[in-house]
Amino acid sequence: MDEFDLIRRFFTRAPGAGVVQGPGDDAALIEPTPGRQLVATTDTLVESRHFPADLDPAAIGWRALAANLSDLAAMGAEARWCLLALTLPSADEAWLQAFSAGFFELADVAGVQLVGGDINQGPLSITVQALGEVEPGQALTRTGARVGERLCIGGVPGEAAAGLECWWRGERSGPLVERFRRPRPQLELGRALRGKASACIDISDGLLADLAHLLGQDPGARVEAAQLPVSQALHAWPPDERRALQFGGGDDYLLLFTLPHEEPLPPECHEIGVITAEPGTQLFDEHGELLPPVDPGWKHFH
Amino acid sequence: MDEFDLIRRFFTRAPGAGVVQGPGDDAALIEPTPGRQLVATTDTLVESRHFPADLDPAAIGWRALAANLSDLAAMGAEARWCLLALTLPSADEAWLQAFSAGFFELADVAGVQLVGGDINQGPLSITVQALGEVEPGQALTRTGARVGERLCIGGVPGEAAAGLECWWRGERSGPLVERFRRPRPQLELGRALRGKASACIDISDGLLADLAHLLGQDPGARVEAAQLPVSQALHAWPPDERRALQFGGGDDYLLLFTLPHEEPLPPECHEIGVITAEPGTQLFDEHGELLPPVDPGWKHFH
Repeated sequence: MDEFDLIRRFFTRAPGAGVVQGPGDDAALIEPTPGRQLVATTDTLVESRHFPADLDPAAIGWRALAANLSDLAAMGAEARWCLLALTLPSADEAWLQAFSAGFFELADVAGVQLVGGDINQGPLSITVQALGEVEPGQALTRTGARVGERLCIGGVPGEAAAGLECWWRGERSGPLVERFRRPRPQLELGRALRGKASACIDISDGLLADLAHLLGQDPGARVEAAQLPVSQALHAWPPDERRALQFGGGDDYLLLFTLPHEEPLPPECHEIGVITAEPGTQLFDEHGELLPPVDPGWKHFH
Repeated sequence: MDEFDLIRRFFTRAPGAGVVQGPGDDAALIEPTPGRQLVATTDTLVESRHFPADLDPAAIGWRALAANLSDLAAMGAEARWCLLALTLPSADEAWLQAFSAGFFELADVAGVQLVGGDINQGPLSITVQALGEVEPGQALTRTGARVGERLCIGGVPGEAAAGLECWWRGERSGPLVERFRRPRPQLELGRALRGKASACIDISDGLLADLAHLLGQDPGARVEAAQLPVSQALHAWPPDERRALQFGGGDDYLLLFTLPHEEPLPPECHEIGVITAEPGTQLFDEHGELLPPVDPGWKHFH
């Protein structure tokens, strides 16, 4: 099987909305929606670095797309098209079958179309590029948080990191493992936050790490550890370990955003702190006591 | 240095035409030209597979972008924006300095802007996604070649493959090595062929391999080996070796296209054969004798 057979067998579907020409030519041909801006992002997943070497290929396919769609969600964009650059040690048909099934399962949920890509031989690595669209002036950005605004999160952080811990312990199912295997990019929430949130980012590196990216040089944030939502599955974990997972664990792909006073909190979102004039992040416990710093999370190089 | 420092130091420039927001947020924000279609492509370069492990980083940066821009050229598109997903064994500053210089050197020549990307740790691999624009109905595609049309090429094939051979022999300069180090995507030629060429592809895998992609199941082509242009640098090679490089060698990134009878041959292009009703490719020598098949070129998996 050459590259073209692989594309035909595993990655070709009938072209849908806005796709003039999908996979198979030198490039894809797309019809952008008139009057919209284009949102473009790319993310790579490297074996053993971004996922365990024994993770099932369906989960790898899902996660590679999810990481990118989450970036579109954090911009308030509608997900439209994507390209896939796949580097594989060999053209393993069973692997490709499962990988493409996981990839397309999320693509269908999110309404995104695969329009092109590239397949190569080499150490396992997956790069997806996602394209979305947003109304002019409506994109959410990382900058814009103002002192006094509420800091909010789109769900329960730490579950994906806990799921990865479970995976390492040999668990292959359960709600936490599923949160790691198949994170759900919050595209609907991102769309709902347009014109409402003053700043937004997705949590891929960890809550505190991405909060630092949101805050930049200034302002700062006061985070109430007791306000962090905890799911039933996470309740079983020792408090210290749970706190490390919730503040430092990545892979949740939840939106972290700031809301002005007058904006109501969207459903299933949680207020976890407030933006302060003092730079940096300070964590407080339920008694108003300052907590010691927590490892802020994922590092791209170590 | 974390990922954000690397992006700031080596990959951030002032936003230009059509870029509402460049690197640094969750995704890039782009203003497409009203009334144009979008052309999207992605290509990965893996160390030791697509380039020698001792190739200088400036050449790696140039080539990673060139492979993608050549796909845009083959569609007749104007190159506009790109994203870069870089996987590196370590955050080596000297390497990044040279890589980004080579990347931006071609970006400046081609008028393309880097709007975003991703940097990760892992085995060296570079994925670029390029976005271009084309007038509706004007994109060149691989399909469309008709019997009797001329088969044409945008320059001298085989020079990049010969340059790679020279590199393996220890040569580090000279015209052939430069053709491998810094191939020039034929964006202007692609634009000039809009509305004229009936089919077009770029030669990345090798002349015969990409010709087979252009022809598909049918039609076929008769190629005159004697009509293949040979440069002074290539004249020094033994005829058999030269023929293998010219027909089987990849990396030239020249355009291969078909022209109807009435269309004049663009400057610096060469007519090398004709489209035939009989499927497949047949090579003929200067006496009209059928030549034995040549290894068609690069395989994505072996």
